[in-house]
Amino acid sequence: MNTFGNIFRVSIFGESHGKWVGVTIDGCPAGIPLSENDLLPDLDRRKAGAAGTTPRKEEDIPLFVSGVFNNRTTGAPLTIVFENNNTRSADYDAIKNTPRPGHADFVLDKKFGGFNDHRGGGHSSGRLTVALVAAGCVAKKVIPRIKIEAQLAEAGGDTNIETAIDKAVTNQDSIGGIIACSATGVPVGIGEPFFNSLESAISHVIFSIPAIKGIEFGSGFAAARMTGSEHNDAIVDEHGTTRTNNAGGINGGISNSNELYFRVAVKPTSSTPKEQQTWNNATKSVEAFTVKGRHDLCIALRVPVVVEAATAIAIADLVMANNATQPQK
Amino acid sequence: MNTFGNIFRVSIFGESHGKWVGVTIDGCPAGIPLSENDLLPDLDRRKAGAAGTTPRKEEDIPLFVSGVFNNRTTGAPLTIVFENNNTRSADYDAIKNTPRPGHADFVLDKKFGGFNDHRGGGHSSGRLTVALVAAGCVAKKVIPRIKIEAQLAEAGGDTNIETAIDKAVTNQDSIGGIIACSATGVPVGIGEPFFNSLESAISHVIFSIPAIKGIEFGSGFAAARMTGSEHNDAIVDEHGTTRTNNAGGINGGISNSNELYFRVAVKPTSSTPKEQQTWNNATKSVEAFTVKGRHDLCIALRVPVVVEAATAIAIADLVMANNATQPQK
Amino acid sequence: MNTFGNIFRVSIFGESHGKWVGVTIDGCPAGIPLSENDLLPDLDRRKAGAAGTTPRKEEDIPLFVSGVFNNRTTGAPLTIVFENNNTRSADYDAIKNTPRPGHADFVLDKKFGGFNDHRGGGHSSGRLTVALVAAGCVAKKVIPRIKIEAQLAEAGGDTNIETAIDKAVTNQDSIGGIIACSATGVPVGIGEPFFNSLESAISHVIFSIPAIKGIEFGSGFAAARMTGSEHNDAIVDEHGTTRTNNAGGINGGISNSNELYFRVAVKPTSSTPKEQQTWNNATKSVEAFTVKGRHDLCIALRVPVVVEAATAIAIADLVMANNATQPQK
Amino acid sequence: MNTFGNIFRVSIFGESHGKWVGVTIDGCPAGIPLSENDLLPDLDRRKAGAAGTTPRKEEDIPLFVSGVFNNRTTGAPLTIVFENNNTRSADYDAIKNTPRPGHADFVLDKKFGGFNDHRGGGHSSGRLTVALVAAGCVAKKVIPRIKIEAQLAEAGGDTNIETAIDKAVTNQDSIGGIIACSATGVPVGIGEPFFNSLESAISHVIFSIPAIKGIEFGSGFAAARMTGSEHNDAIVDEHGTTRTNNAGGINGGISNSNELYFRVAVKPTSSTPKEQQTWNNATKSVEAFTVKGRHDLCIALRVPVVVEAATAIAIADLVMANNATQPQK
Repeated sequence: MNTFGNIFRVSIFGESHGKWVGVTIDGCPAGIPLSENDLLPDLDRRKAGAAGTTPRKEEDIPLFVSGVFNNRTTGAPLTIVFENNNTRSADYDAIKNTPRPGHADFVLDKKFGGFNDHRGGGHSSGRLTVALVAAGCVAKKVIPRIKIEAQLAEAGGDTNIETAIDKAVTNQDSIGGIIACSATGVPVGIGEPFFNSLESAISHVIFSIPAIKGIEFGSGFAAARMTGSEHNDAIVDEHGTTRTNNAGGINGGISNSNELYFRVAVKPTSSTPKEQQTWNNATKSVEAFTVKGRHDLCIALRVPVVVEAATAIAIADLVMANNATQPQK
Repeated sequence: MNTFGNIFRVSIFGESHGKWVGVTIDGCPAGIPLSENDLLPDLDRRKAGAAGTTPRKEEDIPLFVSGVFNNRTTGAPLTIVFENNNTRSADYDAIKNTPRPGHADFVLDKKFGGFNDHRGGGHSSGRLTVALVAAGCVAKKVIPRIKIEAQLAEAGGDTNIETAIDKAVTNQDSIGGIIACSATGVPVGIGEPFFNSLESAISHVIFSIPAIKGIEFGSGFAAARMTGSEHNDAIVDEHGTTRTNNAGGINGGISNSNELYFRVAVKPTSSTPKEQQTWNNATKSVEAFTVKGRHDLCIALRVPVVVEAATAIAIADLVMANNATQPQK
Repeated sequence: MNTFGNIFRVSIFGESHGKWVGVTIDGCPAGIPLSENDLLPDLDRRKAGAAGTTPRKEEDIPLFVSGVFNNRTTGAPLTIVFENNNTRSADYDAIKNTPRPGHADFVLDKKFGGFNDHRGGGHSSGRLTVALVAAGCVAKKVIPRIKIEAQLAEAGGDTNIETAIDKAVTNQDSIGGIIACSATGVPVGIGEPFFNSLESAISHVIFSIPAIKGIEFGSGFAAARMTGSEHNDAIVDEHGTTRTNNAGGINGGISNSNELYFRVAVKPTSSTPKEQQTWNNATKSVEAFTVKGRHDLCIALRVPVVVEAATAIAIADLVMANNATQPQK
Repeated sequence: MNTFGNIFRVSIFGESHGKWVGVTIDGCPAGIPLSENDLLPDLDRRKAGAAGTTPRKEEDIPLFVSGVFNNRTTGAPLTIVFENNNTRSADYDAIKNTPRPGHADFVLDKKFGGFNDHRGGGHSSGRLTVALVAAGCVAKKVIPRIKIEAQLAEAGGDTNIETAIDKAVTNQDSIGGIIACSATGVPVGIGEPFFNSLESAISHVIFSIPAIKGIEFGSGFAAARMTGSEHNDAIVDEHGTTRTNNAGGINGGISNSNELYFRVAVKPTSSTPKEQQTWNNATKSVEAFTVKGRHDLCIALRVPVVVEAATAIAIADLVMANNATQPQK
């Protein structure tokens, strides 16, 4: 299932080297002001261009196919597509025999019986995150009072991002990073007690982003080493404000009105320039291998806006669920 | 939505101090041998009784309401209930005015307009995990060749669990822990490229378990500090076996046939015996507060079997999805 | 999938001759006044007892398992069960070899590989509609301003129901009927343009009721023989009131504020007392056959309240969807 | 929700006068041979051109956006779009004030707060059925052994279709019709006992098609006037073959291996050339009104292939559900 959400439903389609990639949002309320230009700032943040990012640059001009009329959402399914105009498919011919380590080449081939579009990772490519960012822009407009902000907190184990990137460029080896994301203005009561906790929903979307290997809310893994009296956040007013925020703004899976806070781990880009080894299905042996194509040395640089989008999508869906099931008095 | 799964659908119902808690599994294949006794070993693992666990002990005898006939699943919805026969509701009367720090009392009251069953956490209680464990037993039988094993890897920051528990008992302060879970026998190809990656599905269910604050797959947060050449797992045969397993058995959201491996962080039990502070809505001031009721000092001791159940449920659903969409040749 | 609804989700479980049948409603708003007594009038309407109905009488006392506290819904999953205390399973032993004509015995055996609970139709029994009626009572309370009323419009082709029943009793052959259902107070705008039209949702639930063979909205099949100028309903005020109501209160799948109106066809009870023929799998031949067990001569007598329940469930779900996606101005 | 299906999920997007209309199929198995040409015969059957159909003709050339590679489905979401190249939006300016009788103009305006794309019915236009037909072509390939055939059984109350159309052209008043649909090769066991019966699934999709007002399976409404001994279909062999087929191939919501048979009622095209009356919101009075734009006199002529598509989509989803939940022996 390539869809997320129960009410604000986001569906992704497209392949890295196909004609377009796109997204359909079903369940978006009517009347939200929306133009293609509104999406450009977030799309720009996701773009390549900085040191450590791929030389493959896409224009990333969103094209509204449906669901917007006179610069307002109509309430009908909202489809946005992006042209893929900068593909070099020949770079990927070798994948069929030598699956790239760290990539999904091997598993996609097996899962889809060899019928998948293998070029550039096909439907599993990071290219698809352009569609996620577009959906995130719409989601942010659905919850205008909630401010979501993600940034790269460390790269290659270093909080000085610039230094880390320089080192990666020098070493010609890819690096990972950690992204911190916070959201303010989340009202109390978002999330469901069982199976659709706020953490469940957010982590569900976050783990759709390629290269994410971990997520922790509030004090996260550090909480496992704290005592209850250290970890518990004392409630200090009738609005639920807490003195500390080890909970990351969530109790029992439900937002508590304090800042929502979580961190995600991004692995180093699988397509490192370094020589690696992999199985060659033609020669039936393990062989040295160097990735072809144009790639990011630190994909984590481009992921914060994608994390924001994922978070906005998860929250928008849960906020709308709350609108549907308001207590009756 | 208190349901997880697209094909193997698990729905939880009940409250901590209600008559029963239960679970319905819809989409379970017919013909699976199943008796109430089959559930007892896992239910026992979840039970209280050891040092560091609550003195509230439930019998936890599963009662099959539907979906099983002549000790085989019928293909119809399978409902299992457990009686709550050991409740002391009077312990919880104070919650209404003094929401317990770390607990969901405050958020539940706001979310449900004060109509929630507040006794013992109501529907948000850890009590509900008995139903999750029951569903996990059925899920394990749906995927009999996959062996899932979770255990407590550290408690209170110490890998010597016994010592950590002793210390917590001495200090009379609750502690957290880290649970490591692995699964062998997962065939290649489980998980969907976008929005239903294997990590998405597992984390979705895992974050339904109370007290979980983080999850990491394979090398997880450590991956963020590795280089691509260190992190990538070289593929060494045609079955996709890798030399290392930093990926935790997952590439691009899809199982790669190597061991599935992840770790989860469990926070210290919110109901610590230590005095805490919280808002008192009657007196309109922050006041000292001591939790009443009977509680675990280290809930993490009882969570491994719940993590296994969550994992089995997520994998069973994705395996069945694969059965539905086999490539046509 | 034994669940209906996207927001107000109704799941049925149980078998005709099991311990209980039941229903879980997930997504019910908190705060709705609800006691077991509230369900009795509709449950009584479904009961047997009148001429033409089965001598099998169940007490049909609803037992609230979860989701209700202090006579109000809590917002957590609401589970209601009914004991099956009047079963004669021995009546059904022969089914295994001689599938009853008109019943699901044959198809259930094939679908579930022989593992289904065959007694009394198992999960496919009309007995399950007691759970549907219970869910309908809750749904009606979710949409208190909408009044739904279904009644038997004809039985055995005769609008004089009493005469028809007398004739069926005399002939000792079962008869069918037509039920007319209307709903007033449905606000404009309920239903989705594509795939979840109001007709789609209602017919989806209606065709879950055993014995239903047709549904028509407004002028229905008669519309196929009208001209556009005859059929179109002239709009006569700003509220959308129409002069005629051939549309049955629905345009383009969406309610138009006029009376919702539809009719359903109920086939004659499959368990007629008349001798029939069926395949005998033991003797491998077609043989004369007489149904055992206690049955209704005119099941249609008991279906109106079930039709109301189905309608209320479908409308409640769509009304709540509208609450979630209100236009933003 | 503009999506149908649990496993084979079909989502429609686009508006009558937008740039494209399209469909995404998520959950389509990989490896199915598929080219744009494969869709042309069914698309042609849906086209206008014959007597009684609209002069608005679209090219209806399907464009595969994703999910097909080397003329095989890839297993990734399959998106197909159609350009709208023959729109006359100015024709629809008046709709805002004078909602067309029988159309969704009024209800869409209310439901979406006036933000809907009102031109040509927007997302609710019959134009969208081109996307449904495309999805139907793919669905048919997913279930290659099942042959679905729908045809116009009567128009304007007359089984001589040609005569009926001639009369409508002479009268310049639109007419309705009845479409009969059958499917052979449906294996036993398709459909779920409760809430996803085969009738539920089919009727759900069928009532997404604009202008459908009724559906009946097997003997349908006539069954309501039969006795049980007349209506029951005697089973005559071990394959479940029945002597008669009043059930229309379905018992208890599940296919029984006999021919699936149902009929649907199509109302007369709302856009009749005859003068009608409607409310004018500018003048606040009921006024004479003549529909503008180019329209079908008998839309039922073009609906059979859409009914086939709807049926194929519903059956494909249920067949795939059966693949997921095969009994385990």
